[in-house]
Amino acid sequence: MEQTVKAAKEASLRSAVIETEVKNRALLNIAEALKAHREEIEAANREDLKRAAESDLPASLADRLRLDSHKIDSLTDGLKALSELPDPVGKIRLRRELDENLVLEQVTVPIGVIGVVFEARPEAFVQIAALCVKSGNAVILKGGKEAASTAAVLNGVVSSSITAADSRFRNAVQMISSRSEVDELLRYDQYIDLMIPRGSNRLVRYVREHTRIPVLGHADGLCHTYVDAGADLKKALRVTADAKCQYAAACNATETLLVHRSVARAFLPELKRALDGRVELRGCPETLQIIDIAAACDTDWDEEYNDLILSVKVVGSAEEAVAFINEHGSRHTDAVLTENAETAEFFLRNVDSASVYVNCSTRFADGYRYGFGAEVGISTSKIHARGPVGLEGLTIYKYLLRGTGQIVEDYVSGKSRFHYKDLT
Amino acid sequence: MEQTVKAAKEASLRSAVIETEVKNRALLNIAEALKAHREEIEAANREDLKRAAESDLPASLADRLRLDSHKIDSLTDGLKALSELPDPVGKIRLRRELDENLVLEQVTVPIGVIGVVFEARPEAFVQIAALCVKSGNAVILKGGKEAASTAAVLNGVVSSSITAADSRFRNAVQMISSRSEVDELLRYDQYIDLMIPRGSNRLVRYVREHTRIPVLGHADGLCHTYVDAGADLKKALRVTADAKCQYAAACNATETLLVHRSVARAFLPELKRALDGRVELRGCPETLQIIDIAAACDTDWDEEYNDLILSVKVVGSAEEAVAFINEHGSRHTDAVLTENAETAEFFLRNVDSASVYVNCSTRFADGYRYGFGAEVGISTSKIHARGPVGLEGLTIYKYLLRGTGQIVEDYVSGKSRFHYKDLT
Repeated sequence: MEQTVKAAKEASLRSAVIETEVKNRALLNIAEALKAHREEIEAANREDLKRAAESDLPASLADRLRLDSHKIDSLTDGLKALSELPDPVGKIRLRRELDENLVLEQVTVPIGVIGVVFEARPEAFVQIAALCVKSGNAVILKGGKEAASTAAVLNGVVSSSITAADSRFRNAVQMISSRSEVDELLRYDQYIDLMIPRGSNRLVRYVREHTRIPVLGHADGLCHTYVDAGADLKKALRVTADAKCQYAAACNATETLLVHRSVARAFLPELKRALDGRVELRGCPETLQIIDIAAACDTDWDEEYNDLILSVKVVGSAEEAVAFINEHGSRHTDAVLTENAETAEFFLRNVDSASVYVNCSTRFADGYRYGFGAEVGISTSKIHARGPVGLEGLTIYKYLLRGTGQIVEDYVSGKSRFHYKDLT
Repeated sequence: MEQTVKAAKEASLRSAVIETEVKNRALLNIAEALKAHREEIEAANREDLKRAAESDLPASLADRLRLDSHKIDSLTDGLKALSELPDPVGKIRLRRELDENLVLEQVTVPIGVIGVVFEARPEAFVQIAALCVKSGNAVILKGGKEAASTAAVLNGVVSSSITAADSRFRNAVQMISSRSEVDELLRYDQYIDLMIPRGSNRLVRYVREHTRIPVLGHADGLCHTYVDAGADLKKALRVTADAKCQYAAACNATETLLVHRSVARAFLPELKRALDGRVELRGCPETLQIIDIAAACDTDWDEEYNDLILSVKVVGSAEEAVAFINEHGSRHTDAVLTENAETAEFFLRNVDSASVYVNCSTRFADGYRYGFGAEVGISTSKIHARGPVGLEGLTIYKYLLRGTGQIVEDYVSGKSRFHYKDLT
């Protein structure tokens, strides 16, 4: 493992300075190779699926494991789109003349070595490797063991495609395959700059709790929708149904609905009519006085269902709704439905979540929907990157200072003075 | 302690939305109060100094512990300057129309709760508290026990000054005083969003190794200056002397000098003449063949002296210098001295450090010298903030999305389409 992480570190220094067009060529090479090796990939995937069937893997997992011709086409389309995005590296974010002939620049650079742990979704292997190639980072990937055969083929395809574009990409994408190697990986905080776990809450928590490497991602997506006193109830019904049902297993689906007391008697019966049969509703005592649904218990307010279940609570004010969200939410995505502009702005300002919405579905929290073109994941962390993270989240910056022999003593003694002039 | 961190969390939610002019008034209140309580502060500081003298504290530490009238004046000047800086919170970094009446904004917000651990420099207490007030964060501070009396008075002055400006600042600045409380603090990763240790390598390492909270700062400042084949040797001598001697205890002072073989015979005797007596020089075998100085041992290349000691190594090329720096440096600040533009750009691109310089002293790595107006510290981390960190490093962003009832299903079904239009 030490050899792997050291090789990644060296690869990261080489990848950091690879030219935009070479990186884009590497991405297109991967797309070509995926098409060329389509049969080999599908055969390996059938092996994984067969093993999964034998070990009674749940159908939902088996579905994620499948890499069919359609998914390969999406992958190659994605790679082409990624090659057309602007290079996130080398952007000059600040250019400042500190003094004559002493010019400071802040320029974006790759982070370095990224470790990625994900579950049995083979296309994630390609997507994440491609994002790292585009952003000039080296990456060490660990996928779920269920996808081992597919991942082995994909790893070969990706590695040979990028080194064919430029030999400096050697070891820029590496794969490890056993769980024990993950534990080892998490110990190399001197070589790995960022860990990105993508998968279940349990996986993300495990990574967070077993490493000193910074972690980007989210364990929980406990999102709220608040139907305010000023809500347009027809709109509210439609948005609530979308936020819960459009894809209930997504991290940005709404788990808890808060309803202002003044509209509860009008809204809740409509809600029950609209969702009954599709969604299991669980109510607070006040909700139960209005509609006949199951009672929510204390743990319901802190649970991400990832399923067609919605807990419903009546609140007395927008302030109460905001306080409830800041206490029980996971700082992922929360929405207010209201026609009252003042309440809307109060909610936007005071809810401490990565994404805060007015009059739309929490399901919009997604890098593609935000127009980022590519998504690394969604972060609920409070530093570096928050919310849907695009390529930019895989970069940091460094400062370049170009002088002509300047020394600090001249500025301390007063012989020279900084004049600070921002250049464009 | 749980009460303290919970109170900080609540305070952070209130502070996050306090208006710019109220925050600035709070800063000016602190400045006023420092002047008004000058005698009380100096008396408390004399107590600390007396205890320090009794316990044989080293003179350098006692010097840092001293908070005299002059330092109080600097503090009040600094507070005034800080109040005049732009508010880092509420900046709209992106405004994008995703579709008609569906507008996304990325807006800067405070991080939340900051934990700061520093050593016996009482003015740091005020400076850091002020930076947190300006950026809308809540802060829990722990200073060195040597400064306990001074810190207690300063804590009272700061707390009452900010709550006088606005009661929402209640508990926004809190102090803890014992070392055991630090260990407890480091466990509250669910309440504290960022730790900033400021002090010795040992302190920074201790914090990093005992918490899951993200840490901003630097343990080591192992900076290099490389005198290239293309260097103007007269300039190089002057810059090297400044980089080593201007303030040898600073993290951005140069510890290792790399000299290109082709100029070693011309440069090294000059270097010895210029620094002899002031600086202890330790050379690699090739250096020793040219000048008569002490021999460097293997550990010299990985040591931050924080003192008037300079290790000197001859290298064969800019590539070798860059590789040596990337292996032995601490990714803080490194400089090349050369008149060769190509070598300069090669060095800037390939050295993986927070600050990379051409033809100037490594001592320039400082938030004030970069024109940031205020400095949180210098970071050698690869995420969030790198190099000298200004107020911006105490902020993150959130996404606001304002709609009129949009649902995701309409975009998935193709009924609606995003059109992505960046607004200014």
